[in-house]
Amino acid sequence: MTDRIDERLVAIGERAKAAARKLAFAGTQAKNQALSAMAEALLAHKERILEANALDIKAAQEKGLRSSLVNRLLLTEKAIEGMSNALQEVVNLPDPVGGGEFWTRPNGLRIQKSRVPLGVIAMIYEARPNVTVDAAALCLKSGNACILRGGSEAIQSNIVLAEVIKEAAVRAGMPEGSIQLVTLTDREYVLQLMQMNKFIDVIIPRGGAGLIQSVLENSRIPVIETGTGLCHAFVHHKANLEQAVEIVFNSKTQNPGVCNSLETLLVEEAIAEDFLPLIGERFRRFGVEIRGCEKTTGIWSEAVRAKQEDWGTEYLDLVISVKVVKDLDEALDHIYQYGTKHSETIITEDYSAAQRFLNEIDAAAVYVNASTRFTDGNRFGFGAEIGISTQKLHARGPMALPELTTVKYTIYGNGQIV
Amino acid sequence: MTDRIDERLVAIGERAKAAARKLAFAGTQAKNQALSAMAEALLAHKERILEANALDIKAAQEKGLRSSLVNRLLLTEKAIEGMSNALQEVVNLPDPVGGGEFWTRPNGLRIQKSRVPLGVIAMIYEARPNVTVDAAALCLKSGNACILRGGSEAIQSNIVLAEVIKEAAVRAGMPEGSIQLVTLTDREYVLQLMQMNKFIDVIIPRGGAGLIQSVLENSRIPVIETGTGLCHAFVHHKANLEQAVEIVFNSKTQNPGVCNSLETLLVEEAIAEDFLPLIGERFRRFGVEIRGCEKTTGIWSEAVRAKQEDWGTEYLDLVISVKVVKDLDEALDHIYQYGTKHSETIITEDYSAAQRFLNEIDAAAVYVNASTRFTDGNRFGFGAEIGISTQKLHARGPMALPELTTVKYTIYGNGQIV
Repeated sequence: MTDRIDERLVAIGERAKAAARKLAFAGTQAKNQALSAMAEALLAHKERILEANALDIKAAQEKGLRSSLVNRLLLTEKAIEGMSNALQEVVNLPDPVGGGEFWTRPNGLRIQKSRVPLGVIAMIYEARPNVTVDAAALCLKSGNACILRGGSEAIQSNIVLAEVIKEAAVRAGMPEGSIQLVTLTDREYVLQLMQMNKFIDVIIPRGGAGLIQSVLENSRIPVIETGTGLCHAFVHHKANLEQAVEIVFNSKTQNPGVCNSLETLLVEEAIAEDFLPLIGERFRRFGVEIRGCEKTTGIWSEAVRAKQEDWGTEYLDLVISVKVVKDLDEALDHIYQYGTKHSETIITEDYSAAQRFLNEIDAAAVYVNASTRFTDGNRFGFGAEIGISTQKLHARGPMALPELTTVKYTIYGNGQIV
Repeated sequence: MTDRIDERLVAIGERAKAAARKLAFAGTQAKNQALSAMAEALLAHKERILEANALDIKAAQEKGLRSSLVNRLLLTEKAIEGMSNALQEVVNLPDPVGGGEFWTRPNGLRIQKSRVPLGVIAMIYEARPNVTVDAAALCLKSGNACILRGGSEAIQSNIVLAEVIKEAAVRAGMPEGSIQLVTLTDREYVLQLMQMNKFIDVIIPRGGAGLIQSVLENSRIPVIETGTGLCHAFVHHKANLEQAVEIVFNSKTQNPGVCNSLETLLVEEAIAEDFLPLIGERFRRFGVEIRGCEKTTGIWSEAVRAKQEDWGTEYLDLVISVKVVKDLDEALDHIYQYGTKHSETIITEDYSAAQRFLNEIDAAAVYVNASTRFTDGNRFGFGAEIGISTQKLHARGPMALPELTTVKYTIYGNGQIV
């Protein structure tokens, strides 16, 4: 921890707080106009963005970054159009600010419970540059000022993206300080940011377990944990095995680099000899590495032996750990021990096994006979999300616009006393 | 911070976690039967409770504790009946667990968003022994296991109270470990408790600013801040002055020891000469000490001069700080600087001034022409509360039963993949 805060960060904090006071009253129309202007600006500055991104990609390759990480950094013309479209989608979402309930107490007091912005939100995230645009848009739509601190690998892309959308937003009438990027890449400044509870209302880390842990341990600002997903699938002995293959394969391979992808497969012993060759063959053809327990390697010899740490590893890659378990109880215990309370799925045709799994697993999203990849704001029908919360306070699961607000009670009296 | 956790605390944590897993499925009827049994047990053990309380009172007097603090400790036969009645009221509140929403996605996935208990809640509170009973009851009704750590001054009372209600709950079928009191009074153990994120899901400090600050700085567990209320009343120049006197007097004196009582009065300059003598006289007769700014003491000579630290002090006593301000803007700035975002009230007949105050004050509860003392779960119509949250995440304002739960998504599929 540190008590000294760099004056450039203090200046960012002050500007954000001043902007937040005004943003709280920005009308829906004004905010939507700014979002549309941001969407257009991205398209208008495509070239500049691609040039900046090329610098990041070059630096990453020179540093010898893994190709899956380099791919996460890469922006294409299509990706920029995607970010622009995402902004337009935020325009179409309902404004979460202002609505609420209203009631009158027997003494005549009229109490209004309405939704107001949180204030200043700091996002700390890793490689993906599109988070810069997505986070800024969701914060703006919900009336919050944002302070963005992306990963150093994407710094050139983020500088240009933030500049482009911020200029467009300010030109459309949003206060200066509504959208700010911290360009100080040294890790020390992240620690300082986490001490700025005078200026920042909430801090949202989005990234790997190391980042989340560091924020949880160092932040003096309330935190919403997002993005650590060590998700499990349990194939019960009464599963439809063909369906199980499809669900497990989809959960693992459809987009392995995201938090709702599958990391560990648990297979009930009674069907392990039937099921493992089916999924093993499917994984082999797709190039997925299997790290299995002793029983797994005994049945599917192409699997390598898992080490103890594999059960607690979120690979975010074409690797999966596989364990043969005696029964549902052992599966529940394993998930209880290693899960991150994100998304878990059981594949079974057995009613009582499904119900026990749904009830006893303590996670944001618990599935029967479906892919873990559905845990997502859009796929749940909420619209764009700022992350998947794996904590229990405030927000759990996909965090969309309403989760970026808080409540405020306004009470109209005419002289009531207690 | 500390990394070593006493094995007695670890044992408490393990018992709580085991209990929480079962409590999550306890039916409403079973929980209500336990609450009724607890209510009866309090009455049956009145004598034992009063004897234990007498020990606390004696120790407090020997230590020379302020009489207002000794009074907060005191239990009478009537107070015990009050705690018993409060338990019966919790029986009558709706169960917050299990309800929720349900929808079907275009691909046939059925998503259920239901409310589930938070898990294990640790309450850290100061003198008042009734918190032991209230907190245990609200946690039990919402399906949470609780770990209670009251102030050392009330330790004898708390030990007996916790024993009586816990035994009754367990006899009525609730799991061992549902209700546990930490009897280790050394402050070091509170620090250790705050590191037990393996066992505790949420920590709720309830007490003075020092306690809250210590928890915020040291806890590795998500915190809900409650109970710091530096509340302001602003008497605008278009106020009905008679009404203003009643509201200010009531806010300050009706129960000065609680968080929603008034601490600072702001008076608009234009009416200060008319208003200060009215409220000054009323306060004088009731024995309220006034600490005023220069202008205040100039008008009401019985006031003493406020020191700088008075504006930031939550007296919780028959003391009030009074400042004459130029206008609404100065009042808003003063509250912005010194308020704790709890409850603020404006007294005015001016529509636009009222609207500006309601909109621009950032607090859990903002009033026009009513006493700040209404910020309370029962007075808002929510039923019993576990505290008044002054933070923005998860819960803001009175925290009743729904705020002691979180959400869980359960998703029913039949083979859906992405």
